Amino acid sequence: MTAFTQFPASAISRLNVAIFIFDDVEVLDFAGPFEVFSRTRLNGGVASRLNDETAPFRVFTVAEHVVNITATGGLQVVPQFDFATAPHIDLLVVPGGFGTRRLLEHAPVLEWITTVAAGAPLVTSVCTGALLLARTGLLRGKRATTHWGALDTLASLDDTILVDRERRVVGEGPVTSAGVSAGIDMALSVVEALHGKAVADETAHYIEFRRAP
Amino acid sequence: MTAFTQFPASAISRLNVAIFIFDDVEVLDFAGPFEVFSRTRLNGGVASRLNDETAPFRVFTVAEHVVNITATGGLQVVPQFDFATAPHIDLLVVPGGFGTRRLLEHAPVLEWITTVAAGAPLVTSVCTGALLLARTGLLRGKRATTHWGALDTLASLDDTILVDRERRVVGEGPVTSAGVSAGIDMALSVVEALHGKAVADETAHYIEFRRAP
Repeated sequence: MTAFTQFPASAISRLNVAIFIFDDVEVLDFAGPFEVFSRTRLNGGVASRLNDETAPFRVFTVAEHVVNITATGGLQVVPQFDFATAPHIDLLVVPGGFGTRRLLEHAPVLEWITTVAAGAPLVTSVCTGALLLARTGLLRGKRATTHWGALDTLASLDDTILVDRERRVVGEGPVTSAGVSAGIDMALSVVEALHGKAVADETAHYIEFRRAP
Repeated sequence: MTAFTQFPASAISRLNVAIFIFDDVEVLDFAGPFEVFSRTRLNGGVASRLNDETAPFRVFTVAEHVVNITATGGLQVVPQFDFATAPHIDLLVVPGGFGTRRLLEHAPVLEWITTVAAGAPLVTSVCTGALLLARTGLLRGKRATTHWGALDTLASLDDTILVDRERRVVGEGPVTSAGVSAGIDMALSVVEALHGKAVADETAHYIEFRRAP
């Protein structure tokens, strides 16, 4: 993946990254990208992580309503914003989990994703978050992937999608990823596209993550 | 790592796994093991994750007080239990993050870890969570590791610790791990020790995590 032409150079000072959360969201699906985007620094090392001075992203969680979210396994998370109060979103992360199934028929979420995508330079998904993007038509005619257990479902939602059953990170906009931990690779690939391989690799080193080749 | 002799066979039906959380805990440090332990199933596949029937672990978060915890990057988490109300703990996970530094001088947390460890067959740490274990004396004379940025600090807390600067998962009790994402390897290695390589590998496959060799 090369640099995204969607972002004007001046906008790359600090991007607003919204992590969408909902009941029965898979924990690592949202926590992986949250970790990567919130811990990336343009200056490497441990000390730079003590503050936000060289942080290229401002990361926050968004849910339909600001009520406690119960993620898979029972983890309780409090969203920072609801759909009405979220700041402008430059980069949207749509994670997966069993909770996506009921959202496929939930108009307020589908409409919000559509609206955000219309104004956001970059939309991404982890795991079965791709099903929600497919439902909104955002993957029409595009390459995409999802969790291995949902590849057929993804194809069935929109038969114009070019489903990639091999790679962990697929597409340049939306950028989709395979299941759960592949969201970490996805986030690092976005960091690399925006800020270069050195910054992405240093972030991977900070979180001691072995990037997929 | 081979099977832990600390666990009588009868106790391996469903173990209570406590994930300790605190302000400025690193997100992926606690979310990685939470994901692994809560999504492990003795019967593989996607459908088995729809319920807890073959779940060998019951996972919950514990904090000093049941008030919202602000993790690194601003993620808000609501602990399920406090020190007084937590159920019996079979397996304790102590994650890291900058918040560990102030806890090194915070007696209620150190005393709680000591008390839990006295009654728990297995204590584990991720990243700088090892510093808290070192402070309580639990790593005395033992092999251990931590985040690469804290290896010298770990050695300075207790000069009897045999600090391993190479491996991602070190020790059989406590089981310590290197930084952040290494907690996923640590949790999978515990799953393997308790339930065998096939169950651990299938869980890694479910979350699409490439285990460290």
